[in-house]
Amino acid sequence: MVKIINRSNILTEKINPKSEMIDTMSTEEIIRLINEEDGTVHLTVRKAIPEITKAVDFVVEAFKNGGHLRYFGAGTSGRLGVLDASEIPPTFSASPEMVQGMIAGGWKALRKAVEGAEDYPENGKEDCKAINLQPNDVVMGIATGGTTPYVHGALKYAKSIGCKTVFFTCTPKEGLGVEEDVDVFLEVLVGPELITGSTRMKAGTATKMVLNMITTTAMIKMGKVYGNYMIDHQAINSKLVDRAERGLYRCLRDCPMMTPIKRCWQPINMSKMRS
Amino acid sequence: MVKIINRSNILTEKINPKSEMIDTMSTEEIIRLINEEDGTVHLTVRKAIPEITKAVDFVVEAFKNGGHLRYFGAGTSGRLGVLDASEIPPTFSASPEMVQGMIAGGWKALRKAVEGAEDYPENGKEDCKAINLQPNDVVMGIATGGTTPYVHGALKYAKSIGCKTVFFTCTPKEGLGVEEDVDVFLEVLVGPELITGSTRMKAGTATKMVLNMITTTAMIKMGKVYGNYMIDHQAINSKLVDRAERGLYRCLRDCPMMTPIKRCWQPINMSKMRS
Repeated sequence: MVKIINRSNILTEKINPKSEMIDTMSTEEIIRLINEEDGTVHLTVRKAIPEITKAVDFVVEAFKNGGHLRYFGAGTSGRLGVLDASEIPPTFSASPEMVQGMIAGGWKALRKAVEGAEDYPENGKEDCKAINLQPNDVVMGIATGGTTPYVHGALKYAKSIGCKTVFFTCTPKEGLGVEEDVDVFLEVLVGPELITGSTRMKAGTATKMVLNMITTTAMIKMGKVYGNYMIDHQAINSKLVDRAERGLYRCLRDCPMMTPIKRCWQPINMSKMRS
Repeated sequence: MVKIINRSNILTEKINPKSEMIDTMSTEEIIRLINEEDGTVHLTVRKAIPEITKAVDFVVEAFKNGGHLRYFGAGTSGRLGVLDASEIPPTFSASPEMVQGMIAGGWKALRKAVEGAEDYPENGKEDCKAINLQPNDVVMGIATGGTTPYVHGALKYAKSIGCKTVFFTCTPKEGLGVEEDVDVFLEVLVGPELITGSTRMKAGTATKMVLNMITTTAMIKMGKVYGNYMIDHQAINSKLVDRAERGLYRCLRDCPMMTPIKRCWQPINMSKMRS
């Protein structure tokens, strides 16, 4: 049987005094309050920039050595990992293998909560083996509330085979009650949620911001961006065909060999060329 | 064949002058710049509070009349809709039918981009029929770049059968080149992304914030929150069993019938009771 831990002292489970009467507020008042709290998230992320930088450095090193980035999470944390990973192939034309998100309970948990899936550390270990985790991979565990056994199981196994490990949490290390031996302890203390324990709110936004930072920055460092243009994205729909054309034009514009013909090139309306 | 529209004038496709040299910056400089831009998102969301309020009012009215909330999106927008929807049953013990996210290309698009899936408005209409859309439902189309044919196809069909419609976009109505006849036009103008056109970044964060606001506020209005406690969530894992116990204790504490026994109740350590 799974042990029920008293988590009342965990920061993300604490009561936010601003919302003790939220059930009596008007719709607009509630939305204003949520917006006010959302406005604090980037400030707490800012404090973690040194650790985010360390995480990116490990990821870039792994990519350069044929390694991968693997996210592990449950519930919202797991879904945000899968979300971030799924955007990498179309945005940067990277192999889907390069960044992969694992979620407790498997793919069906993307749409529907899977009962008890996160409670077993061995599930995390099993998922590491299922994706054939290698020592040159980086494993990033995501557990905003800090304790998710699935995530700790994955991190422990990853460490044991020599992977670099990153642990993302919105709970301070002190009092977490979980022994951590990770290379980067990335804490973003967004504080108590307006709905007690609803870490899909501020903690989820912090998670999204940090994951986006890690993959975007790593891909820039891997040469997937020229100026601020994606130069290696997949043109798999109408929007992306248009964007690719403009990116190509932008690169050509900067090329010294294009100088002699620039004067006649620039006024061309590319959309007219296509119709 | 699908028509390629020149989208260079669309706000989310414009070049952000702050990042024109992003490919030459250090890892830490890039992360600081992303964080700075992320810090503007909640301010642009704030400007849309009147429209978000209108959207919530429609959703609450629908819920009270047995209707549902249906998100429609492609790529990141679609995934964020599915993400928000998937969190409602465990958080508020609502039926999975109540809030549902549809994504162009179907469930496989949650993990992997599906080529061309978003280019056909008829796919949006077909998905409306597949979920048996009813006139008392609210359809919220999400298209940060504004043009996604899949989303417009769904909105048009929804409107035609009498649904209330909400359109979320990060592109101004003017110059969008798409005729809109929706009940709520919810624009959040986050401006050009640091990586040109990469709307998974600021636009995605704005989307997440707005969807979370809509469902959280609607659920509060439906009586699913007491004080700031979730009082109707599913205790399907260790973390949630613990949270449910604390919520119950909190509610009992406020009950006048508990007053006589409060003095002996309060010092009880619930975690000890369980071991």
